[in-house]
Amino acid sequence: MSEPGDSASVAERIIAGDRNALSQAITLIESTRDVDQQRAEELLEALAPHAGGSQRVGISGVPGVGKSTLIDYLGSWLVEQGHRVAVLAVDPSSTVSGGSILGDKTHMTRLASLDGAYIRPSPSAQTLGGVGTRTREGMLLCEAAGYDIVLIETVGVGQSETLVAEMVDTFVVLMLAGGGDELQGIKKGILELADIVAVNKADGDNVPRAREAVTEYSGALRYSRRSGDAWTPKAMLSSGRTGDGLPELWAAIEEHREAIAASGELDRRRQRQRVSWMWGLVEETLLRDFRRAVATTGMLASVEQKVIAGECTPRTAARELLFGEPGEGD
Amino acid sequence: MSEPGDSASVAERIIAGDRNALSQAITLIESTRDVDQQRAEELLEALAPHAGGSQRVGISGVPGVGKSTLIDYLGSWLVEQGHRVAVLAVDPSSTVSGGSILGDKTHMTRLASLDGAYIRPSPSAQTLGGVGTRTREGMLLCEAAGYDIVLIETVGVGQSETLVAEMVDTFVVLMLAGGGDELQGIKKGILELADIVAVNKADGDNVPRAREAVTEYSGALRYSRRSGDAWTPKAMLSSGRTGDGLPELWAAIEEHREAIAASGELDRRRQRQRVSWMWGLVEETLLRDFRRAVATTGMLASVEQKVIAGECTPRTAARELLFGEPGEGD
Repeated sequence: MSEPGDSASVAERIIAGDRNALSQAITLIESTRDVDQQRAEELLEALAPHAGGSQRVGISGVPGVGKSTLIDYLGSWLVEQGHRVAVLAVDPSSTVSGGSILGDKTHMTRLASLDGAYIRPSPSAQTLGGVGTRTREGMLLCEAAGYDIVLIETVGVGQSETLVAEMVDTFVVLMLAGGGDELQGIKKGILELADIVAVNKADGDNVPRAREAVTEYSGALRYSRRSGDAWTPKAMLSSGRTGDGLPELWAAIEEHREAIAASGELDRRRQRQRVSWMWGLVEETLLRDFRRAVATTGMLASVEQKVIAGECTPRTAARELLFGEPGEGD
Repeated sequence: MSEPGDSASVAERIIAGDRNALSQAITLIESTRDVDQQRAEELLEALAPHAGGSQRVGISGVPGVGKSTLIDYLGSWLVEQGHRVAVLAVDPSSTVSGGSILGDKTHMTRLASLDGAYIRPSPSAQTLGGVGTRTREGMLLCEAAGYDIVLIETVGVGQSETLVAEMVDTFVVLMLAGGGDELQGIKKGILELADIVAVNKADGDNVPRAREAVTEYSGALRYSRRSGDAWTPKAMLSSGRTGDGLPELWAAIEEHREAIAASGELDRRRQRQRVSWMWGLVEETLLRDFRRAVATTGMLASVEQKVIAGECTPRTAARELLFGEPGEGD
């Protein structure tokens, strides 16, 4: 009944804090084999009651802003305070190259060496939505395993930010101060998502410019309605290298969470997130099943051939795959 | 028969170089109304034989790297050489915020004032794939209108880069030189996509560091197989501000195109692009039709309610929407 590997016993081992069981489970949920997906579903259903108990924090910013260094320092400090910290990642390029530099232990050497920390690189998947779903499931597993803080790293700009912002309680965006470019790289969407902006690399000669950047961002953030009336997003200084500003950053993250918990916004946010999780799964299944269906009938091969040869337009070909005959409407 | 606005006459006006007809047509293809979609399809089918005749160049890079300034300078120079230049954009955040700072005429004031240029911001859509499809269609319309160069701007990192790289003949990535961070921000995926890397802001005091960056990138690019044996991606200096390096950049873009045309790689690339265009349309339609179907039966509302209340997991809910009853498999 309790064979090693059956879902109930794996679930027990995860809850008991067995790190190997957790890693195996996360690998399982990333597998595309049908038999693995079946086991993964059983495991996730079994552990769902044990999920939800962490502080979920997203950390975003363009490449080069210093995310890894900051997470290494902050995460280690949190473990020293007695927390158990999981670091996951959503890397938009993991749908392409099959490898990711986010969640890379070689860039978080101190944290990776601590027993109270667990680091995992971004999952790969066919679509960004699929990466998001795998990451949410990984977060569920880490929570069941007793990690009380989950940091989710992503690369700043666009859809992966939105995806991560929809998985976490608090979304932190790291920015740099430099020349007159502070606002040039800002996309409206980034400021609309941020609960906290940390102006990183605020050390050495950089501090005066970093303070200016904090002032500029604070002004822009005053208009954000992301957390409703419960919280006005704030900008602050940080240095992932020296550790300056990191305790204050964590204090702000906790302050944010208390504020939105008190106002009911946290519950609303998590409800919306469950719904968007559901849609991610729906979209992923729809596309996967469709691709299989048209591949097995042989229609896919013949239609693709016509498109390659330029004998019909992509639009007409799409209609033929979807509806059976070119020119038939829906 | 030839009422103003019917597809055949709009098509004729576009081919004749009527700028208003082009703008109206691009607005039409971005509309989600069914009646507009019908007209858009007729127009695109009518103009498809007139497409394909431009040099398609993607220009990517993180926010702050200077894309708008460079496109403004380069585009204006190309128009002065007698070309007709269209500038389109794929902005991943245009699925969220509904507005985009890419393809923004206020940042390309010189180019926007020239008759031989046409600038359009990123289309909005439900998904990034939808944005890509609209942009491909916009490109088709611009080519039918006689633009012989189409520049597609995107923000560097992740899926939007991949999307644009799959629409163009030559993909140019702009990078900055700065401190020791040249390679820190590089994602493997970016180098795998680039046909040319331009180290921008190579002016004034920045030139020595820019030269070092060119050397580093050249080394890394030597291993790229993106264009097979026909082309080894190269790195070069550029300044969108002074114009230095821009004629050389364009010469390299043309050199790339000739090389892949001669090797057959250009034809293969465009064939793959037509197929991926087809898939973009398929996915978009699948999701849209599914959402409508479950919304109209009322099932969506009841399932979402259970998820919001925490009465069932997102995974179970997804299965219920897809297959009708919780627990029924596929």
